[in-house]
Amino acid sequence: MALTNPNPMGPWKITVYDQEHFQGKRMEFTASCQNAMECGFDNIRSLKVECGAWVGYEHSSFNGQQFVLERGEYPRWESWSGSNAYHIERMMSFRPICSAVSIGSHKESKMVVFEKENFIGKQWEMNDDYPSLQAMGWANNEIGSMQVQSGAWVCYQFPGYRGYQYIMECDRHGGEYKHYREWGSHAQTFQLQSLRRIQQ
Amino acid sequence: MALTNPNPMGPWKITVYDQEHFQGKRMEFTASCQNAMECGFDNIRSLKVECGAWVGYEHSSFNGQQFVLERGEYPRWESWSGSNAYHIERMMSFRPICSAVSIGSHKESKMVVFEKENFIGKQWEMNDDYPSLQAMGWANNEIGSMQVQSGAWVCYQFPGYRGYQYIMECDRHGGEYKHYREWGSHAQTFQLQSLRRIQQ
Repeated sequence: MALTNPNPMGPWKITVYDQEHFQGKRMEFTASCQNAMECGFDNIRSLKVECGAWVGYEHSSFNGQQFVLERGEYPRWESWSGSNAYHIERMMSFRPICSAVSIGSHKESKMVVFEKENFIGKQWEMNDDYPSLQAMGWANNEIGSMQVQSGAWVCYQFPGYRGYQYIMECDRHGGEYKHYREWGSHAQTFQLQSLRRIQQ
Repeated sequence: MALTNPNPMGPWKITVYDQEHFQGKRMEFTASCQNAMECGFDNIRSLKVECGAWVGYEHSSFNGQQFVLERGEYPRWESWSGSNAYHIERMMSFRPICSAVSIGSHKESKMVVFEKENFIGKQWEMNDDYPSLQAMGWANNEIGSMQVQSGAWVCYQFPGYRGYQYIMECDRHGGEYKHYREWGSHAQTFQLQSLRRIQQ
């Protein structure tokens, strides 16, 4: 069977529910939601991504832990959360990832990672998915800074795409993330051990 | 910087600890461990994969939940676990994934997935990583059966490499997984929404 991306450039669509397993109050979104409470949701407990790639956030106004949401079904919190270091189990805002390249477009995602903060030290140009940076020869479990030249990326604390997630986009911060403090409000260290492109 | 896999074909090496964050009793392994208890470990609470790709299991004798372990540091249970549907927080056995292709070898990993059990229905040949099968045009959130022709793969319950993990290898079961009952003792449904190659 030949499979092709049915909607290469969106539009974006996500359906959220206030109960697990797609039960309870239901609402469709085709654009970002800054505060689920203002849409009448105390919490979002399950969701279906029907089109595009999205990022969900633990808090309103796109703050706190980040979760990449790609097309498919997420019946409960643990199906999208990367970390259960603390059990907040909530998602209060979300938005489309506009710079994610579309599958099959042959448009490349490109990012340069640096050993130290402020774009210094050893550097490595990435254009693929890397479930273990150390298996590829990166010397340690940290990355100091990053420049996203095209596309959108998700970086993870642990190998195999586990732990805290950090969404990095060419059209945010000018694509420049020069210190872990710019990765997101939940970032506390330079620890990064796997990363991959976001495609939609 | 040009990066290359420093040890393309092994040998395998994993160091396990009985406390989180690489503390407590410590032991190195270069081959499989069928029962951590017999090595004096009540539990394994952190680990470092120094060479090769491994699979960890919740129970002894390679039973229960499966966790792919690639090169890097895993300071606590949540850094390797795919699912916290129930909080066992243990790893009691582990082994190398011998059929994982080595990074940069240009040896392809190949698998065919089928819509229905027993290798019937629509089929799709895979030789890449797929964070969302639905984004690629697969019609639903299930796969009926799989034939692994080369390499080793990890399949996940949810998109974005989340949820229960199932390790599929060309040199086990003759590479044939004709029903979810053959995916592992923890498999309870056909639900699979992302999958990727295991490289070491």
